[in-house]
Amino acid sequence: MQSVTAIRHAIEAGERTPKEAVGAALNGIAAADAGVGAFEHVGDRDVILATAGRSKGPLAGIAVGVKDIFDTHDMPTGYGTPIYAGHKPRTDAAVVAMLRRAGATIVGKTVTTPYAFLDPAGTRNPLNQHHTPGGSSSGSAAAVAAGMVPAAIGTQTGGSVIRPAAFCGVSGYKPSFRLVPTVGFKTFSWTLDTVGFFAAKAADVAALAGAATGRALAVDAFEDSAPRIGLYRSGAWNEASRDMQEALAAVAERAANAGARVTDIAEPAELSAAREAHSLIQNFEAALALSDEFDRFADRMSAKLVEALQSGRNTPPEQYDQARRIARRARTISHSLFEEVDILLTPSAPDAAPEGLESTGSPIFAKLWTLTGNPCVNLTAGYNAAGLPLGVQTVAAFGRDAAALSGAHWLERLH
Amino acid sequence: MQSVTAIRHAIEAGERTPKEAVGAALNGIAAADAGVGAFEHVGDRDVILATAGRSKGPLAGIAVGVKDIFDTHDMPTGYGTPIYAGHKPRTDAAVVAMLRRAGATIVGKTVTTPYAFLDPAGTRNPLNQHHTPGGSSSGSAAAVAAGMVPAAIGTQTGGSVIRPAAFCGVSGYKPSFRLVPTVGFKTFSWTLDTVGFFAAKAADVAALAGAATGRALAVDAFEDSAPRIGLYRSGAWNEASRDMQEALAAVAERAANAGARVTDIAEPAELSAAREAHSLIQNFEAALALSDEFDRFADRMSAKLVEALQSGRNTPPEQYDQARRIARRARTISHSLFEEVDILLTPSAPDAAPEGLESTGSPIFAKLWTLTGNPCVNLTAGYNAAGLPLGVQTVAAFGRDAAALSGAHWLERLH
Repeated sequence: MQSVTAIRHAIEAGERTPKEAVGAALNGIAAADAGVGAFEHVGDRDVILATAGRSKGPLAGIAVGVKDIFDTHDMPTGYGTPIYAGHKPRTDAAVVAMLRRAGATIVGKTVTTPYAFLDPAGTRNPLNQHHTPGGSSSGSAAAVAAGMVPAAIGTQTGGSVIRPAAFCGVSGYKPSFRLVPTVGFKTFSWTLDTVGFFAAKAADVAALAGAATGRALAVDAFEDSAPRIGLYRSGAWNEASRDMQEALAAVAERAANAGARVTDIAEPAELSAAREAHSLIQNFEAALALSDEFDRFADRMSAKLVEALQSGRNTPPEQYDQARRIARRARTISHSLFEEVDILLTPSAPDAAPEGLESTGSPIFAKLWTLTGNPCVNLTAGYNAAGLPLGVQTVAAFGRDAAALSGAHWLERLH
Repeated sequence: MQSVTAIRHAIEAGERTPKEAVGAALNGIAAADAGVGAFEHVGDRDVILATAGRSKGPLAGIAVGVKDIFDTHDMPTGYGTPIYAGHKPRTDAAVVAMLRRAGATIVGKTVTTPYAFLDPAGTRNPLNQHHTPGGSSSGSAAAVAAGMVPAAIGTQTGGSVIRPAAFCGVSGYKPSFRLVPTVGFKTFSWTLDTVGFFAAKAADVAALAGAATGRALAVDAFEDSAPRIGLYRSGAWNEASRDMQEALAAVAERAANAGARVTDIAEPAELSAAREAHSLIQNFEAALALSDEFDRFADRMSAKLVEALQSGRNTPPEQYDQARRIARRARTISHSLFEEVDILLTPSAPDAAPEGLESTGSPIFAKLWTLTGNPCVNLTAGYNAAGLPLGVQTVAAFGRDAAALSGAHWLERLH
């Protein structure tokens, strides 16, 4: 994989120009994407190289793939659906403009599942092309994992950043809710939709997100002492495979051996209730956000999406309000998880990437944290017998993104 | 003015068809808009009448003007700026689709100030064309006040619903934050932007918003007993004109005479602090939301907008985070205002509509409640010597929209 931090170091040292670094990404896409199908659209080579040659700032020379759920003023934006075929937004999504302003070069649009929902979109897992890369940010995770680009952005409403990062063995960072503006991407559920970042390792996503937001996200929080870790098996523990359960235990043991205090943290009942409330909130909001599409274009939607939107439309507002109260209560309770620990450690997904391309896998281990808004970072805890990565995530208190990133970085260096 | 509830009654009684009711609105626009300039675009008459003829549901026969900050799939959408001239969205904003689903007929796009910010856009106050109609939902308020349409929608980030409603003498309803989805309108500030409704009286906006959202917003909360009213002069009281101060006192006295318990409520320090924090939050978020426009099209923006965006860009994230904490604290404190009262009564604006079209007036009495997310409804408390309305607003606890609407309705019936 390409590394954001390594490319930055090489450019700072004068060993490489931004144009050369971005050119290498374009070559990587040309060489590898036919087998992976990570890109929906790749920009014109000459235009991109000219842009890279002019680029300045902390992300100069960093080629970024943008999930095709984000508006881009210079590339078509289809939201994964034929309803928007050929759509050309006038302006960039906020985070796209923020990346460009920091010097990044947008090289193309990565494949998203339709409306960033659960239906797969054809991208293959670069580690084994018979397996799903996860979704909905399928192309962004796969493009980074295949070494095509050092960085990509995606979105998470259930588990759409953490799950594909886990399945593809890359770092995926879902920031605290609203830390990064959602302006300019196709809304599915406004209290859940969250922008996320993909890169090789935690240090790379931290550098990427820090440069885009101007926030202090450096991975140095645990340089002097090991983090206090809460092992959070979660109320969904029975959904985790034996491989995943063992991988989580193994990384916890490595952490303890390296000096971290590791304690078990049981899931409060309020958080189990919130996990259950996630789908109702998501579907109610999606049915409103996509009102016009549903009224005029339902025939161009999948059966699964139509079912979710119909379910949302049939939900009385009072039930939604009650689910939102459960979510607010969970957000308050979530603070108490961090009274004695810096980070939680919990599975990113039930298992490694499932075989087959007909499903993008389950968001069950990610969706609670999307609902509560806590920052999460996926890292690879180990590999199964087939050589596929088993991803776990660090979770920090709301607004303590630097702890989630630093914790993942600290754990990655134990390998 | 046309009344939503009167038109509904006439249609239900078979005295009028939906097509006739919408046709009357089109005639009203043709007759009056040349002098007012409320509409940016009016749809094709034949298409609109055919749509109205087919319409079913609680808003069948209700012609609605849509602020040109909302996407419409069948009409151009310009957000008040030449940057988006000729822009044709693929799909409707969520609230537009919700209105259509309830049977409403969208007849045109009403004038918005550029990006719904403070710069005026040429619309005149139909009550006196030398005065501003207020902004940023200038066209929506003016179109209802002039009797062109029975209903219109707008948005409020500072005071953009309550202020033009006050200046034009119509009912304006800003719902609780997020009660109505903001999906599909041009974001300025995502923690402040709120959809709002305009109609003749409180009963009319309640019927309109209730039908669009499927929520119980009927104005019957105080049928049996008078509301308990908190007279909230607010920390900005010195900004209110003598006329406004007297109008507020007069409506409070009428309410007390009619049996309402009226008590003075002083502004907590936390709420004064929140009013001060509003601009910083707004400008910080606007600078991100409009990143791409600012980077590429600043030369097509007003000096005032450029200054606000530059100020937002220069604000360190830590200052924004601190302002957001002040806002959250204010939201918590705001609940305590309603321990003993059902609604607050407070000015909508410092005075009646100012003379001249070079300013849309001050949002100072509205922006605190945009920040806290409380529901607000403007009603006319009296008139100044020039015959222009003096607007005051009812404010209810977060989520108690029916109380704000019912309170305004109860007060309107005292006249």
